[in-house]
Amino acid sequence: MSTVIFSLRSAADGDRLMLPLVRRTREPHLGMWALPGGWLDVAENLDDAAARTLAETTALAPSYLEQLYTFGDVDRAPSRTISIVYWALLRSDLVDAQRAVADAPENVEWFDVDALPELAFDHRRIAEYALWRLRNKVGYSRIAAGLLPDAFTLTELREVYEAVLGRRLDPSNFRRLLEGSDELVPTDSFRTGKHRPARLYRYNADA
Amino acid sequence: MSTVIFSLRSAADGDRLMLPLVRRTREPHLGMWALPGGWLDVAENLDDAAARTLAETTALAPSYLEQLYTFGDVDRAPSRTISIVYWALLRSDLVDAQRAVADAPENVEWFDVDALPELAFDHRRIAEYALWRLRNKVGYSRIAAGLLPDAFTLTELREVYEAVLGRRLDPSNFRRLLEGSDELVPTDSFRTGKHRPARLYRYNADA
Repeated sequence: MSTVIFSLRSAADGDRLMLPLVRRTREPHLGMWALPGGWLDVAENLDDAAARTLAETTALAPSYLEQLYTFGDVDRAPSRTISIVYWALLRSDLVDAQRAVADAPENVEWFDVDALPELAFDHRRIAEYALWRLRNKVGYSRIAAGLLPDAFTLTELREVYEAVLGRRLDPSNFRRLLEGSDELVPTDSFRTGKHRPARLYRYNADA
Repeated sequence: MSTVIFSLRSAADGDRLMLPLVRRTREPHLGMWALPGGWLDVAENLDDAAARTLAETTALAPSYLEQLYTFGDVDRAPSRTISIVYWALLRSDLVDAQRAVADAPENVEWFDVDALPELAFDHRRIAEYALWRLRNKVGYSRIAAGLLPDAFTLTELREVYEAVLGRRLDPSNFRRLLEGSDELVPTDSFRTGKHRPARLYRYNADA
């Protein structure tokens, strides 16, 4: 089992879509970066195994978890290994909290999806496939919610889309599109800070 | 490995979307209907194993084959069994030809997707998930091509959509939609028979 888990993390040029990798502590590919994962237990459902192996290797608990694909090419590892791969999202407001509580393993590091290091096995291909699935799904579903707190400003939502899609979106078009749909409901709360207060929205559970 | 393979077959009320099932010849679930499948060989890629086990159990070779999902609930079979499932399409003009040549096994029968018998294991859930995927994909892709000969009339194409979606479509709307797109290219050939000649089309390889 392996899991590609994405979150938004602050970088010098704004929030970036990132994923955690684990430095391997054994052969094969000792010392190389790999996706978090582990072996399926005989008495464990697949979703549970994905969540457990992710927690054991990274101390992270996903906001969203879905099976991606099963990779089983004969030559993908020295001995025949079938890998049932999941992809996951983690709300950006939970990453640091989870890592602080759970004593994150030291061999884990977050990487920008556009600047991944060399990866063990076929893990680069797997990471790229997961990214393709996320980019695809963000266009027709509410999957962005898996990367956001319960309430968020329209600017924060646009920044999620921008980080996932890897390109800038026009702020007024984005606002118009969402205000014209029934996807979001305004709350009575505002985000305050150095900018002028911005209204917080939630996804509409009835839409 | 199991494969859900769909094709269009003539029935009393027109072409129907159907899938072949195999009557089990061993325990567990001896005598029950099940999806075609078999075990993965140690030196075989997953796609190859899906095609091989499908051929061995049904003598069918798919026009289209794609991984569906990996099912691995702890209680889905008496002993722990992970099933990597594929779904497939077979052009309606090839079904009988393949079966005639290849000496189809006797314990195989085609069933209307809306009238499946009781199935072994979790195979009903798997068949329903594959049908959901097909219905979904027919809306945004050219997947219907996997159920048709290379050249087809607009009526034949509409009948594929109707069989897959399980509902009637308005013939003139359907024709207008397709004639307004660049998805299809007209050929110089016509289907002749008891009706007036109907032009044959192909999918546009450049679109």
